[in-house]
Amino acid sequence: MNLMREKNMQHTTQRAQTHELLKSRGIERALFANIATVKWLTGFAPPIQTGPSPFLGGPPLVWYENGHWTLMVLDWQEANAGEFARQENCALVSYTGYTIDQPLTGQVKLRGLFRSVVKNNLSGKIGIEARDAPADIALTLHELGAAELIPVDTWLESFRRIKTPEEIQKLRDNFFLTDIGHAAARQAVQVGATEIDVWNAAHYAIEKAAGQRVPLGNDCVVGYRKDNVGGAPLKYEIRAGDSVIVDLSTILRGYWSDSCATYYATEPTAKQRAMHNTAQRALDMGISLVKPGAVAREIDFQVRELMRKEGYPVYWHHTGHSLGVTSHEDPRIVPYNDMKLEENMVIMLEPGIYFSGETGVRLEDAVLVTRDGAEILTRHDKSMP
Amino acid sequence: MNLMREKNMQHTTQRAQTHELLKSRGIERALFANIATVKWLTGFAPPIQTGPSPFLGGPPLVWYENGHWTLMVLDWQEANAGEFARQENCALVSYTGYTIDQPLTGQVKLRGLFRSVVKNNLSGKIGIEARDAPADIALTLHELGAAELIPVDTWLESFRRIKTPEEIQKLRDNFFLTDIGHAAARQAVQVGATEIDVWNAAHYAIEKAAGQRVPLGNDCVVGYRKDNVGGAPLKYEIRAGDSVIVDLSTILRGYWSDSCATYYATEPTAKQRAMHNTAQRALDMGISLVKPGAVAREIDFQVRELMRKEGYPVYWHHTGHSLGVTSHEDPRIVPYNDMKLEENMVIMLEPGIYFSGETGVRLEDAVLVTRDGAEILTRHDKSMP
Repeated sequence: MNLMREKNMQHTTQRAQTHELLKSRGIERALFANIATVKWLTGFAPPIQTGPSPFLGGPPLVWYENGHWTLMVLDWQEANAGEFARQENCALVSYTGYTIDQPLTGQVKLRGLFRSVVKNNLSGKIGIEARDAPADIALTLHELGAAELIPVDTWLESFRRIKTPEEIQKLRDNFFLTDIGHAAARQAVQVGATEIDVWNAAHYAIEKAAGQRVPLGNDCVVGYRKDNVGGAPLKYEIRAGDSVIVDLSTILRGYWSDSCATYYATEPTAKQRAMHNTAQRALDMGISLVKPGAVAREIDFQVRELMRKEGYPVYWHHTGHSLGVTSHEDPRIVPYNDMKLEENMVIMLEPGIYFSGETGVRLEDAVLVTRDGAEILTRHDKSMP
Repeated sequence: MNLMREKNMQHTTQRAQTHELLKSRGIERALFANIATVKWLTGFAPPIQTGPSPFLGGPPLVWYENGHWTLMVLDWQEANAGEFARQENCALVSYTGYTIDQPLTGQVKLRGLFRSVVKNNLSGKIGIEARDAPADIALTLHELGAAELIPVDTWLESFRRIKTPEEIQKLRDNFFLTDIGHAAARQAVQVGATEIDVWNAAHYAIEKAAGQRVPLGNDCVVGYRKDNVGGAPLKYEIRAGDSVIVDLSTILRGYWSDSCATYYATEPTAKQRAMHNTAQRALDMGISLVKPGAVAREIDFQVRELMRKEGYPVYWHHTGHSLGVTSHEDPRIVPYNDMKLEENMVIMLEPGIYFSGETGVRLEDAVLVTRDGAEILTRHDKSMP
């Protein structure tokens, strides 16, 4: 795996697309405050595993002004930003978070930094991610003379659906990590082990391979749990005959992966074999439908239909979804979604069968929509023992 | 460890204090949006390890109105809130996050829920945590008729310094987890192991003991790192003669722990023994100064003086800090701080000595300020082999 980024990309496409859009709508200035947007626009991704730092003044902010970009972050984040944030037409500025010389006032300092970046006399329309911008930052814009604030919260979502080559490389590297996690989890599913043991085996293998801490999300649930569709690992012990659903999402360079498999501590029962085979057929069928022009809800319908025809209860969750700077985004493969797939979308598909308190199976792959079909990005072993 | 909460506490003291304060300032309504405040007011703590969920509409919000409280959360958070949020004079309401029946619009739904909770015709002064409230929620308040918004961002900090018996119990349980992590880390520091190996050993032992996922923060750095004061574990290998600083913070029920020790793969050198002994004396001396009435900056000064007198470079970081719903808060034990310690404050003390690229030592304990002195809450083994 190559954890270094290609030098000549650095999310320039994303900023160019956004610039064109804002320009076409007559917006000369804009504030972006949603962490997903900030990652997408700049490639900058702060650590997240322990929540917001007490030194942090607020979310990283991006200010746009006539094709120029400024990313505002905590000084400690700047020190760790490296190449991620030192980019063409995107300045990086920071405020003091930690000091032993005065009380901690990161939030006041972020506001001061914001003021100095934005300057005075804001004329014209100003775009703002109002759902995520802190109220006091929005108020600062008002104080600086902003007359007309235009909410732009959802404006970039359609761009985000189509992944750039740089993003696809980040996702490939990240799926490689979940593959490693799955191999370790598969080994760790043994009679007497707990869900936490399996989780730890996966997480450890992932961090060892990455050479750094990696956030890990999703599910590790033994079949006899009442809610055996998903959930964080607990101390449930794995017994002979048990199935274990392991659904892993890692976050690398701000981008999410995802993938699921079902493992067995002993020889699967005949019922489990039949369920597993149906889930695999459903997944394969779903993948076979993926190509440019395919309609999301039609894939959803076909995969559910296969479940129903093979005599199983149809899962209540989505058939699939895309991902990127968040773990779940459009195109969602769900009953209402008329959206058509396009080249360079990345789609997760994850049909499952669940018998509450008894056993369950879910299998999930990631696919890249190619010019005439799909390339599978996940390579974990989903076969039965 | 008892992970269940006592039934008769549930942060009622915190809400009562806040109610009295708001009443005394003539504020009949207030919006709290800072996650630390929300945890402190209600005991409700959402999971944090993978960042915000794509189904989340924004931070959990607390609305105060004349002594009555309403906590607004995502439906999945409500399902997992259990007893934490079903409390006397604090209603729990939620909005739909995940659905396969329509597009994901958690942010729109949170705003709708907020509207329905707040109702119309907001007269009088309205308190608001403006640094954390989303701009569109503040705008909604304005639309509903709020005339006078009063920023209350820092108003509760002085209350937060004095821990309630319930909070002290949460902290004790949590320090017990870091003790377990340290015992495992101590064992794992072996020639040939990497920082990530040591980290994983600690994290695994903690989650195993807790029977659930536990966020883990802070440092695991081998002495020969250039910046050997702190940092997340990487793939640096531990060699004979190396020191390893392991600084662990866990988060349990929304409350943070903290504690540090220094371990050695082999017999420490004479230099390391001397450093370690000085760090231990500095820590012991700091602890001996802790009692009601002691001034934060004087403790800071005395501990630094001991370092200086024993011939070592004086560390650049704080001597200590408090914690609770965040990892670092007042009273900070730093040079400027005139604050006096009071009974039921919890203070971390963590003197260290660092030789960049060579070796380092830091030792840290938590102490509870008692009526006439201090009780040590951390029990990890900080001795040399």
